[in-house]
Amino acid sequence: MKPARVALIGMGTIGSGVARLLLEQKDRIARHAGRPVELAYVVDTDTRRKRNFTLPAGLLTDDLHAVLRDAEVSVAVELVGGLEPARSIVIQLLESGKNIVTANKALLAEHGRELFDKAREKGLSIAFEGAVAGGIPIIASINECLIANQVESIHAILNGTSNFILTQMEENGTDYAAALAEAQQCGYAEANPFMDVSGSDAAQKLAILAHLAFSAHVNWREISRTGIDIVTAGDMQFAKELGYSIKLLAVAERAPEGLELHVSPTMVRLGTPLADVRGAYNAIRIIGDAVGRVFFHGLGAGQMPTASAVVSDIVDTILGRMAITFKTSDLWSDGREALIQPRNPADVQGRFYLRFNVDDRPGVMADIAGILGKHHISIASLIQHENEEESRSVPLVIMTHSAPEGAMQNALQAIGVLSSVHPGTVRMRVRN
Amino acid sequence: MKPARVALIGMGTIGSGVARLLLEQKDRIARHAGRPVELAYVVDTDTRRKRNFTLPAGLLTDDLHAVLRDAEVSVAVELVGGLEPARSIVIQLLESGKNIVTANKALLAEHGRELFDKAREKGLSIAFEGAVAGGIPIIASINECLIANQVESIHAILNGTSNFILTQMEENGTDYAAALAEAQQCGYAEANPFMDVSGSDAAQKLAILAHLAFSAHVNWREISRTGIDIVTAGDMQFAKELGYSIKLLAVAERAPEGLELHVSPTMVRLGTPLADVRGAYNAIRIIGDAVGRVFFHGLGAGQMPTASAVVSDIVDTILGRMAITFKTSDLWSDGREALIQPRNPADVQGRFYLRFNVDDRPGVMADIAGILGKHHISIASLIQHENEEESRSVPLVIMTHSAPEGAMQNALQAIGVLSSVHPGTVRMRVRN
Repeated sequence: MKPARVALIGMGTIGSGVARLLLEQKDRIARHAGRPVELAYVVDTDTRRKRNFTLPAGLLTDDLHAVLRDAEVSVAVELVGGLEPARSIVIQLLESGKNIVTANKALLAEHGRELFDKAREKGLSIAFEGAVAGGIPIIASINECLIANQVESIHAILNGTSNFILTQMEENGTDYAAALAEAQQCGYAEANPFMDVSGSDAAQKLAILAHLAFSAHVNWREISRTGIDIVTAGDMQFAKELGYSIKLLAVAERAPEGLELHVSPTMVRLGTPLADVRGAYNAIRIIGDAVGRVFFHGLGAGQMPTASAVVSDIVDTILGRMAITFKTSDLWSDGREALIQPRNPADVQGRFYLRFNVDDRPGVMADIAGILGKHHISIASLIQHENEEESRSVPLVIMTHSAPEGAMQNALQAIGVLSSVHPGTVRMRVRN
Repeated sequence: MKPARVALIGMGTIGSGVARLLLEQKDRIARHAGRPVELAYVVDTDTRRKRNFTLPAGLLTDDLHAVLRDAEVSVAVELVGGLEPARSIVIQLLESGKNIVTANKALLAEHGRELFDKAREKGLSIAFEGAVAGGIPIIASINECLIANQVESIHAILNGTSNFILTQMEENGTDYAAALAEAQQCGYAEANPFMDVSGSDAAQKLAILAHLAFSAHVNWREISRTGIDIVTAGDMQFAKELGYSIKLLAVAERAPEGLELHVSPTMVRLGTPLADVRGAYNAIRIIGDAVGRVFFHGLGAGQMPTASAVVSDIVDTILGRMAITFKTSDLWSDGREALIQPRNPADVQGRFYLRFNVDDRPGVMADIAGILGKHHISIASLIQHENEEESRSVPLVIMTHSAPEGAMQNALQAIGVLSSVHPGTVRMRVRN
């Protein structure tokens, strides 16, 4: 049977992994694709850089047009990353009739509508299993295997970098800065870690999952999010004392009033599966009305886990399965009615962990409790340790009962004005 | 668009769940199938029994021929269970041009070859996501999402009944008989629990997974298996003392000498994900050479989780995705070369937990240790508590280092002959 010709755009870490699988595991892949899969082009602007995988001579080029002109190439894999030039490249590839495989969640979260419209217009498909949770087959699971269900909720650890940093802090007692430096040394965090540690990367992935699982149209920028850079070694201690682990949790949950979405460092009870997710792993807990609770755990990023997902998408596209999936799932489309609207973040209820740095003098606790009470936020438990070091300020930790995010923000604003409360108040969610 | 007509054969527990989803969630299912899905027939020999779901009048019939004659029915769902008449029914349905969806692992493990050959001959497909691990999308994951990988190992809890019983024993300190009775009362175990508690059900499912993941031809009867009925309350205590939980583990692992397969109550270290699987849940841990470790956890049986899997198969079949998957995966076929042979069970190495009931007198320990040594089995640790009750026999627990199953069997046979060793020796595997 005639080989299927594939082009790879972007020879970075993931690209090298995909090239390695396509070249070194030819037999395995041909068996599953029903024909040989030929890596015909690898396009990268930098054709000279040393990589950890050496391509056969003649494969690497900086000429995207060679791919665009080759009518035999039916699948193009975008692994450039980021928004531009990735977006323009994908548009050009679609214009020239290539089906797309990508692992670029930022691109989908930002330009999904435009790209999917273009693919539909051209009768092509876009596959993106590698864009969320790397090696965990979560896109196919939601989009194909759980379709009999109304998904009720998703609770997920979607950013391996943040989870690595939090695990370092928890296991070694290090502070955030030291754990981040460690993550950067190990290659788990980039020089500029903003997208990862701010919760933005997790919010983009959550927006994609919410789109699939709830048929919701979600703008990732409108998802309420808090980063892990607020978490201190002291918070880790308090969490342990209270029986929790701190995880950057991405949550989407159906409520009668709408879809509740947030990304936040969250206290997760020790001994539960999400609390046991360590290092660079990801995990996703889904509740469906028929299937009940399903839990997935695996490497959420990294070269080979993501390459594994990308190659399965390539094979799905070659087999024609992806064309069917893409057509019926009708993602990011005007034609696809939004079945639920995101709820106003201010109205989303939750339990909260609050840590204040307060003056160690009488009346402070009464002031704070008074303001919380005025905003109808009720205190579930409280920790203030003896001030053994006789320092001027001491940490005061409050766990609240369920309260709306908006009321919590207003209360914290009022508390922040108190002269006895120092800057650096920390607020995290608590998983019920 | 013209509705897709579906027939359901077998209106038991799972059948009722599938009927409920197809009838009550019409919109949801039509959205995913790209057209309405019409439940056209429900066939059951017993049309009078009260069920927990009432069908619209006229749908239930005991006439299979009505389905066979109706050329508009493209998908038939076999939920009769067992071998016969399920096998004959599926053959007839294939002969009359129906694609099959089934959740019948016994049927596939026993007659997979015949049924798949027939389906191929007729250009039809057989889908079976519900046959293994209920609501966990493990078939699609292995068969579609992880195809870029050489699967290295599968460690799985595949029988919810056994796991429920073991969890009861562990949490309540009850013995096997009481926990089994509890499982029967709760509807988790059948009146005749043999297939579940003997490890046979898990072996059938493991054979199916091994077929998919390793391209191995496995006869489930040749898988070495031990049931959970050997486990006593005392073993549960010893396991806890040693830092383990006891799980009925189904294992398939690649070794240079072949595929190692076994089902056995197994000591799994506390705090690991498999040890945390409780009640009627199932879990599967897969290691792939690209993806690393992936872990799935969910309800492995029960009406709605299994119905969820069956309905996703129905939709996959209607969409035409299943026809592609079925064709390329070429399961249970002569044309599909076995990539690895099952290894002789006697040669499969492993660590073992041994519990003897021995006379409380000098020399016994030396006799047992001597025989183990003669068979080159080395002792890793040992527990013998003081005989506080001054009973004639006391339990002696030995944890071994890695040894071949065959050597272990020979040693136990020799030890069984000792007059100081009473009947009722227990042997379990220990997960490394």
